[in-house]
Amino acid sequence: MAKDERFVKQITAKSEDFSRWYLEIIRKAEMADYAPMKGIMVIRPYGYTIWENIQRLMDRRIKETGHVNAYFPLFIPESFLKKEMEHLEGFAPQVAWVTQGGQEELEERLAVRPTSEAIIGSMYAKWIQSYRDLPVLINQWANIVRWEKVTRPFLRTTEFLWQEGHTAHETMEEAQEETIKVLYMYKDFVESELAIPVIEGRKSPRERFAGAMETYAIEALMSDGKALQMGTSHNLGQHFSKVFEIRFEDREQKQQYVWQTSWGVSTRLIGALVMTHGDDSGLRMPPQVAPIQVVVVPISLGSWKENVLPVALAIEKELLEAGLRVKLDAREEFTPGWKFSEWEMRGVPLRVEVGPKDIKENRAVLVRRDVQQKDFVGLAALAPQVKKTLQQIQSSLFEQALRFQRENTRSVSDYREFKEVLESKRGFIRSWWCGDEACEDKIKEETMASIRVIPLKEEAKEDPGDCVYCRKKGRELAYFARAY
Amino acid sequence: MAKDERFVKQITAKSEDFSRWYLEIIRKAEMADYAPMKGIMVIRPYGYTIWENIQRLMDRRIKETGHVNAYFPLFIPESFLKKEMEHLEGFAPQVAWVTQGGQEELEERLAVRPTSEAIIGSMYAKWIQSYRDLPVLINQWANIVRWEKVTRPFLRTTEFLWQEGHTAHETMEEAQEETIKVLYMYKDFVESELAIPVIEGRKSPRERFAGAMETYAIEALMSDGKALQMGTSHNLGQHFSKVFEIRFEDREQKQQYVWQTSWGVSTRLIGALVMTHGDDSGLRMPPQVAPIQVVVVPISLGSWKENVLPVALAIEKELLEAGLRVKLDAREEFTPGWKFSEWEMRGVPLRVEVGPKDIKENRAVLVRRDVQQKDFVGLAALAPQVKKTLQQIQSSLFEQALRFQRENTRSVSDYREFKEVLESKRGFIRSWWCGDEACEDKIKEETMASIRVIPLKEEAKEDPGDCVYCRKKGRELAYFARAY
Repeated sequence: MAKDERFVKQITAKSEDFSRWYLEIIRKAEMADYAPMKGIMVIRPYGYTIWENIQRLMDRRIKETGHVNAYFPLFIPESFLKKEMEHLEGFAPQVAWVTQGGQEELEERLAVRPTSEAIIGSMYAKWIQSYRDLPVLINQWANIVRWEKVTRPFLRTTEFLWQEGHTAHETMEEAQEETIKVLYMYKDFVESELAIPVIEGRKSPRERFAGAMETYAIEALMSDGKALQMGTSHNLGQHFSKVFEIRFEDREQKQQYVWQTSWGVSTRLIGALVMTHGDDSGLRMPPQVAPIQVVVVPISLGSWKENVLPVALAIEKELLEAGLRVKLDAREEFTPGWKFSEWEMRGVPLRVEVGPKDIKENRAVLVRRDVQQKDFVGLAALAPQVKKTLQQIQSSLFEQALRFQRENTRSVSDYREFKEVLESKRGFIRSWWCGDEACEDKIKEETMASIRVIPLKEEAKEDPGDCVYCRKKGRELAYFARAY
Repeated sequence: MAKDERFVKQITAKSEDFSRWYLEIIRKAEMADYAPMKGIMVIRPYGYTIWENIQRLMDRRIKETGHVNAYFPLFIPESFLKKEMEHLEGFAPQVAWVTQGGQEELEERLAVRPTSEAIIGSMYAKWIQSYRDLPVLINQWANIVRWEKVTRPFLRTTEFLWQEGHTAHETMEEAQEETIKVLYMYKDFVESELAIPVIEGRKSPRERFAGAMETYAIEALMSDGKALQMGTSHNLGQHFSKVFEIRFEDREQKQQYVWQTSWGVSTRLIGALVMTHGDDSGLRMPPQVAPIQVVVVPISLGSWKENVLPVALAIEKELLEAGLRVKLDAREEFTPGWKFSEWEMRGVPLRVEVGPKDIKENRAVLVRRDVQQKDFVGLAALAPQVKKTLQQIQSSLFEQALRFQRENTRSVSDYREFKEVLESKRGFIRSWWCGDEACEDKIKEETMASIRVIPLKEEAKEDPGDCVYCRKKGRELAYFARAY
């Protein structure tokens, strides 16, 4: 294959310009495109299929943990957002407002939902009367609008898709249990299905969701060393229930306010897949969410349509029947080399090649996208071998990402070193923090690094060190990073 | 069971006030609730699960016919809607406009999508270059906003959920074939899954989608004798492709405009389920889309928790393992009679009762929701018998609805009779029409009946009669009805 016919020839190297590399992959793999309005994107079929796979696998987990889906309105009257001032102030700069309906000016502006706590809270106040109505465990899949100044496909767009869980409970303990249960549901999902290792933990008060008592998050390290928030789970306490009057009669016939949580993940996860696993040849999709798990490419030599194509078709059929997502690329206008690089760009985890010589040997060639390794496999054992290889690829992508995350997580106790690491290597920095917002602000101002999480599991293990900034007694062990 | 403990005691009879009956079912079965803004509803979990079942079964058909899903923006710049004036005029009175983003006034108003032809057309113009890029067969599941003055849950709401297919083709013939293929896909879906018989046909020019060359629809008869449009499939011709410059190089290297179609069904289908199958005890859900297919009610007599509950649990387990959607109602605070009427209200197709006497006889009682018939079934044969009965219920609901539709479809050639039928019986009226919009308008004005469809299959069979209004030579055999 001539070098110049490679589909990927124009792609920017990842090491050269990460941001341009990211945008080129999104465009060339046909994951998304820009709409004719600033900051708004179209999710093309290849990108949307990833989202469908994410939805299916996440929805199953959401239901297995006892939640049900519902659908709440897109529009929220301004007066509802205003009921909770902290919440409103958090979101007001980002709200798109509907002011006209048909030919008439509206008496009250309607917010296009930036999140749904307010509208859902107002409904829960109607639906919940007694402790018998609790817990309420509702999730919705919806589109969300936040007016953003600087946008990037999948990572930050004016409109995006997400799921948002909203639950109501009898006690504070139950709400806290739910918050943590969901956090670990997210962690398990992202690690098992997206093959992206995450650090789970608590946010600092400064980084909390507007209106939450406590925010928890999972954070991943992208391959440029910047962190990405992958999902959040909020313990809302009684903040919203007091504002929206969500009361119930408890077991002692007393009126109480419910305890609430909310939590979500979004199409941002698709951006994380690109930035975690992608390389200079394009995407590398984890098999669990890959739109196409296996591409079958017949080698088009001689009278291939008579000799090779029937075998390729039989392979496609066998793999489809094994329950795999398979694509046979029998296009005549492209060479095998062109096809290889196109499907590499799109990140198809496994390629099956079959040519005249392979047929004589009664075998096919398996080529792994993740490590570019070639293996000959007898046709008789093909389907089981393909399944096994896909599992290996899923694990291997996770292992690679985990190694990267570990290599780029550094314990630092000295502020000079802290700054040096951020300048030269980025990654996560584990440092002690006094708990004072002033230190947090100074660090952010001087280094652009923020506290991503205060890890749930590590704190107890170590004797507190001094705050990396002010040298006072450390109160929290925090993961700092520059973040998207 | 005392009469007065029946859950449904307050429900209005269907024959007494159909509209109130409909609203009461929606509310009492917890399918939907009003949001605090006029005309906007919340779809509660029970209603949303019906939508999830519809989505799953429809999405499978959409994909089996070669379509893929994508996601296009919620907001459409006014200038895009304006490119196609007929389209704009059709939708302008119903558009909600975003005029502010964050703190700033927008330079151009953004329409909250009332349908997506304009935004999708503008993207297709970018993506389609050559005949090799065709056909484009894309669908999206999305929320839609149309500012409505008079609303009714599921049937007409300011925001609703739907799927919209948008395809582009090389030739007029291909687009027409797609339009008809989708029409029959919808018919098959609605009849097989929702158990609602429909008449498929062409719309009169007056009832066409704004911008379409030809609109086809499936129409069903609700049990009050009014028609409901269940889905539409439009052949858009080159109307939008000329406006949005969607061109391709054809096989002779000449520039051509693509031929397009669009088609959709919405959450309105849930309203159709209620109005077709519901009775004075509440909903009757077809098993294919029922959130709960079987409810197991242990008869709470004596020490039922020791003797009866374990058997009920075993039954639940067995039916779950048989792949059914099952609910065990073991609540202690309600009597069996209360539970029976609650699940009848919610339309659960089949109830399994088991009490101390049944256990002695090693049997359970199956009670069909559709015909209230009771059968004793040996526990050994339970799962297969339940499956078989669910199939019978699915067929029986369709047969009942078909009988109703046939009994309420009348061929009328005289205008006096036409008016009489509408006053006394409603239903579909088959009449010849001259094809003149003036007659159509007069009929609508005088009788409130419109042409629902010009059936595809019946026309050729009969010699044309005279127009039911003007007595001129009939050109089209039309189905008239009052409609939602």
